[in-house]
Amino acid sequence: MPVKLAPPDAAKILPIAGVKIGITEAGVRKANRRDLTVFSFASGTTVAGVFTKNQYCAAPVLICKQHLKNSAGIRAMLINTGCANAGTGDDGMVRAQATVTTLAASMGIKPEQVLPFSTGVIMEPLPVDRINAGIPKCVSALAENEWTNAAHAIMTTDTIAKACSRQVVIDGKTITVTGIGKGAGMIHPNMATMLSFVATDAAVSQGLLQRVLDDVVMDTFNAITIDGDTSTNDSLILAATGASGVTLVDETLNYAAFKQAVYEVCLELAHAIVRDGEGATKFITIAVENGPSREACHKIAKAIAHSPLVKTAMFASDPNLGRILAAMGYAGVAELDVSKVSMHIGHVHVVENGGRRADYVEADASAVMKEPEILIKLNLGIGNAKATVWTCDFSYDYVKINADYRS
Amino acid sequence: MPVKLAPPDAAKILPIAGVKIGITEAGVRKANRRDLTVFSFASGTTVAGVFTKNQYCAAPVLICKQHLKNSAGIRAMLINTGCANAGTGDDGMVRAQATVTTLAASMGIKPEQVLPFSTGVIMEPLPVDRINAGIPKCVSALAENEWTNAAHAIMTTDTIAKACSRQVVIDGKTITVTGIGKGAGMIHPNMATMLSFVATDAAVSQGLLQRVLDDVVMDTFNAITIDGDTSTNDSLILAATGASGVTLVDETLNYAAFKQAVYEVCLELAHAIVRDGEGATKFITIAVENGPSREACHKIAKAIAHSPLVKTAMFASDPNLGRILAAMGYAGVAELDVSKVSMHIGHVHVVENGGRRADYVEADASAVMKEPEILIKLNLGIGNAKATVWTCDFSYDYVKINADYRS
Repeated sequence: MPVKLAPPDAAKILPIAGVKIGITEAGVRKANRRDLTVFSFASGTTVAGVFTKNQYCAAPVLICKQHLKNSAGIRAMLINTGCANAGTGDDGMVRAQATVTTLAASMGIKPEQVLPFSTGVIMEPLPVDRINAGIPKCVSALAENEWTNAAHAIMTTDTIAKACSRQVVIDGKTITVTGIGKGAGMIHPNMATMLSFVATDAAVSQGLLQRVLDDVVMDTFNAITIDGDTSTNDSLILAATGASGVTLVDETLNYAAFKQAVYEVCLELAHAIVRDGEGATKFITIAVENGPSREACHKIAKAIAHSPLVKTAMFASDPNLGRILAAMGYAGVAELDVSKVSMHIGHVHVVENGGRRADYVEADASAVMKEPEILIKLNLGIGNAKATVWTCDFSYDYVKINADYRS
Repeated sequence: MPVKLAPPDAAKILPIAGVKIGITEAGVRKANRRDLTVFSFASGTTVAGVFTKNQYCAAPVLICKQHLKNSAGIRAMLINTGCANAGTGDDGMVRAQATVTTLAASMGIKPEQVLPFSTGVIMEPLPVDRINAGIPKCVSALAENEWTNAAHAIMTTDTIAKACSRQVVIDGKTITVTGIGKGAGMIHPNMATMLSFVATDAAVSQGLLQRVLDDVVMDTFNAITIDGDTSTNDSLILAATGASGVTLVDETLNYAAFKQAVYEVCLELAHAIVRDGEGATKFITIAVENGPSREACHKIAKAIAHSPLVKTAMFASDPNLGRILAAMGYAGVAELDVSKVSMHIGHVHVVENGGRRADYVEADASAVMKEPEILIKLNLGIGNAKATVWTCDFSYDYVKINADYRS
């Protein structure tokens, strides 16, 4: 059961002029499910991407990076659910390329104008025949208002589809930003969404679009973690079709408004991924403040977010809060002065000067921890920087889902 | 249920001349259990220690480090089970000191000749009165042949006591090394045993004893992990009473034989801690070979050992082996060339040149993974260094134990 997360309201997920989506049942891994998605972009669309930092990344990630560098003008994306095509060596590259070539031929574009994405089981061969058979069906189904359906088609162990839109008025014209994402497990920054596709009808140069995405990802997708496992396939794409007729230029107020809209879409998708994390019963915000640098605060927040002992205590609503400070202590921040640390759980002030407050009553923390959303706030007392990380708890169901994933 | 681990055979756990142990029920946390242990060392005993690198370390760890530095000649250890005395600020130091002073008075030695150790719940005040009331009972019970009882008295969530002995003949005389340990959870190198106490009747200078311990810990206690959480209280002690009359000198054959015996005791205790890891159903050896450096191999082995996705797949005996390579990929070893990687599970050759072998049959790996002991061997193909790490799987019971620990 996801934590306070409702399915997207299809009426509120806005199409983006210049983007069409076609979906089909290709039987990539399972029969009778829509598992193959094609995005087409109008000519002139700019595309930015952020990908997994896992060195053992999947074949489609390698191809995406290459095609984005070529700058031939990206015109399409091909996404399959069920087979990651990672850990597949040269054969994996050949297979991914074969599907890219088929889509390019089917749309009358060049192969290097296609970005491929895969999610699913690692180290199994990509079923090229089934995907190639599905491609013409996707292409003939291309339509503007398919975002919510696409959000469903890219799901794996997700229990709820993830999609959202934002609009902002610039120079009297409305710009729309819409995105979809999938997550559930193997989710950990560096970068870190499983797959997320965001598009806008603003006109933005590729260089500027990439800067927007790099900035936004730090405080959204790279600030969430489910289990600390960085996937082989993580990909985040931001495409700008320019169909609104509004061109954005760096360092203007309009640019800031646009970036804010992209940030809000990415944050909502990132939070949705945590809320629907495998086995999640709690949505946990870890805010580390007054640290020596953003990096140091982020490091401590991450150590806490990854600690299985903290995560199981959260699952149990057990204020065994020393585990939080223990995780802080091994995060590896040299400047840390434990005697200056203060900690709140929700509104309850638990620790000051590194030790438990004399008037702290465990029942107060216990009450806060029974809520589905929990805020852990650490004040390091040694600087002005801060960082926030979001995570979920560790439940029986996490083990169940990951022990049973392939069966 | 621990993985292939039998309780120690008390007849095989050998006393160490010059070491006496007294145990009592002090009611530190729970009634009716032996939870307070005193070790006394003969005059002239040298003592070496390795402690947690967690910056948020417990009060007793701070005191141990100070007393070892003072070199007043350590004559006693005081170990309580139930209260970690970590995250307790200045008050925790005062309380730990109060118990140290009581033991010193009771034995007629100086407080700085006492090393205190605690294990249990973090951030709760040490029950000084109950411990001080128990100390005279421990002192009056001091006897040589209490090692196995002490192994029981230091347990927390351990299901089996951990103790072992080795003997080696040097210059016609027998030297004995005996150790006990406790573990179960929150166990992760840097350093990493919860508590482990080893003693020998050899005579070894403190400097040399510390070098032996530092060398041995790297490939034993610092090469195991249960959940990646470095505890606030981890402590490993090696004491040398000299009662055998054999004095060891650096860089001799005798020294190598002695170090080997210490290594074997530490390795057996470290393995026992993994085998009895919280919820463990599998004992997993991760051997990384032909890497660019020991450190790089260790980093990759650790990333695999920490991955919840790998650990849940091991629990399920599901050869979802791409997860192992994904963990390798995010370990952060720059020299890694994934196209050169080869992987075996037990005797089954799964991956070569970074991809799945053409003749690999999943049923073979599946059969290996059903065993209680699993060997994962990665050959990086880019050097001559290697490292081995031991861990266990991640089961429903891990979550259960850690969600329920305090209740």
